[in-house]
Amino acid sequence: MKLRILGCYSATPRVNTNPTAQVLEINNHMFLIDCGEGTQVQLRKHKVKFNRIKHIFISHLHGDHFFGLVGLISTFRLLTRETELHIYAPKGLKEIITLQMKIAKSWTNFPLIFHELNGTTSEIIFEDDLVEVHTIPLDHRIYTNGFLFKEKEGERKLDISKVEEANINVAYYRKLKKGFDVENEDGILIDNTKVTKPANKPKTYAFCSDTAYSEAIIPIIKEVDVLYHESTFLEKNESLAAPTKHSTAKQAASIANKANVGTLILGHYSTRYDDIQDFKTEANAIFENVELAEDGKLFEF
Amino acid sequence: MKLRILGCYSATPRVNTNPTAQVLEINNHMFLIDCGEGTQVQLRKHKVKFNRIKHIFISHLHGDHFFGLVGLISTFRLLTRETELHIYAPKGLKEIITLQMKIAKSWTNFPLIFHELNGTTSEIIFEDDLVEVHTIPLDHRIYTNGFLFKEKEGERKLDISKVEEANINVAYYRKLKKGFDVENEDGILIDNTKVTKPANKPKTYAFCSDTAYSEAIIPIIKEVDVLYHESTFLEKNESLAAPTKHSTAKQAASIANKANVGTLILGHYSTRYDDIQDFKTEANAIFENVELAEDGKLFEF
Repeated sequence: MKLRILGCYSATPRVNTNPTAQVLEINNHMFLIDCGEGTQVQLRKHKVKFNRIKHIFISHLHGDHFFGLVGLISTFRLLTRETELHIYAPKGLKEIITLQMKIAKSWTNFPLIFHELNGTTSEIIFEDDLVEVHTIPLDHRIYTNGFLFKEKEGERKLDISKVEEANINVAYYRKLKKGFDVENEDGILIDNTKVTKPANKPKTYAFCSDTAYSEAIIPIIKEVDVLYHESTFLEKNESLAAPTKHSTAKQAASIANKANVGTLILGHYSTRYDDIQDFKTEANAIFENVELAEDGKLFEF
Repeated sequence: MKLRILGCYSATPRVNTNPTAQVLEINNHMFLIDCGEGTQVQLRKHKVKFNRIKHIFISHLHGDHFFGLVGLISTFRLLTRETELHIYAPKGLKEIITLQMKIAKSWTNFPLIFHELNGTTSEIIFEDDLVEVHTIPLDHRIYTNGFLFKEKEGERKLDISKVEEANINVAYYRKLKKGFDVENEDGILIDNTKVTKPANKPKTYAFCSDTAYSEAIIPIIKEVDVLYHESTFLEKNESLAAPTKHSTAKQAASIANKANVGTLILGHYSTRYDDIQDFKTEANAIFENVELAEDGKLFEF
């Protein structure tokens, strides 16, 4: 599982800070999460192959999370994309995008499929053989979802020396990987667990931005491997966090701690702070395994 | 008159090329012309004071000319702007911007005034004591205007030694600057032209992008000091220019020549070309005074 941060600052794009966007590679999928202004340039800068992006997840319709989307769709069109593109976003985005395409007389030549969200409880919005994506309802000034990405259980791994020792025909290997017991060349039923090893533990990633401190999300993100939780402010500015429905680094760490996650990544920093290390210091007082998002940074898990 | 090119490439923003946007300083005004994605970052990079921009002119509603506008307006809001902002743009833009503000529940706290254009002949869309702005109807795939910026005739300049010699009271200096004859201390009427010099010649700038080759614009831009004319293609790709309603460098030079302008600035280059010098070389065969727009370049006239 790889996570490329394209932008992790709040509010407005600046010369050296980008608004929210990230690319998650998980089980052979490449998901784009949020798409602030300038995301397409960040994708180019980090050499992400545009055509591998087939699903885009938009948390909410504040500009720093989606103003780059219409331009990206327009660029896909200019690049004569044919692959379908799915967009999962709050209700309203379809109208915003299609109005602009209509006025520009620039319809896409690829299928553009909107999955508009308005649920207020966690639901599955994408599923295939490899991955599930669930919404994480967040507490922000407008309707907002985080997203939980879950790898599905993979196939068991053959313990080749044991498989050969047990004299099993190669035609049964696929069935073994799927967990079935099979007969060997001598007609003896072989216990699957004797000749295979468990699949890798499926990985999970939860993206939670933007949100006030909300313990309601804990049951949904319980024990995820990686949690990205916004920390717009430091504790000293907690009085700004509450009315704007954002979180402090300390609050993000408290959620990580209570949900017993593996790693906490902080991001969505206000540009008022000179040194983002202060976010890590503050969070570390409550939760040990803290990483700082930085524009361009690649995490591998 | 100063012209700062923020972006001068066609189609999509890339790591080192920006879509159309420029800032014109003329007679104490600061006008923003077009606003492709990333314009607000370019404004910051070149230290343009956001609050000096009170009038934004949008040529047409293809994304590379306006996708940065909603973000810029949103940033003005976050910066707690109070000054009113006027936007001159084809009909449709108001709906696009207000829809996004409505869905984000993020109305501006400053007056945002749209002047929607749908005229098909040149008209005055802005005028004060210092400057006039006229539309230049262009020939593109969707409704498009260029803009002609004209300084108004300034005040005459006092020839101080002659004014003093003529024994004119200082109270009359303002009247002299406005071109009136005045009486001197001895009650003698003094001919204005004997003691003042003509005002500087008013400067003119015409912005023409995007457009097919169109001689219809020549009467409007006749003898402007500076003409920015799009040259998306080189002549070798003229077959692409016609159907997309763009121009070649040669065609831009031909317009400059026929309109007898002072300086031609080329821009809106397709990113297919490795060396923009080829645009200058091609245009120079027809018109001598050619400049190349480059992202970030400042022209002073």
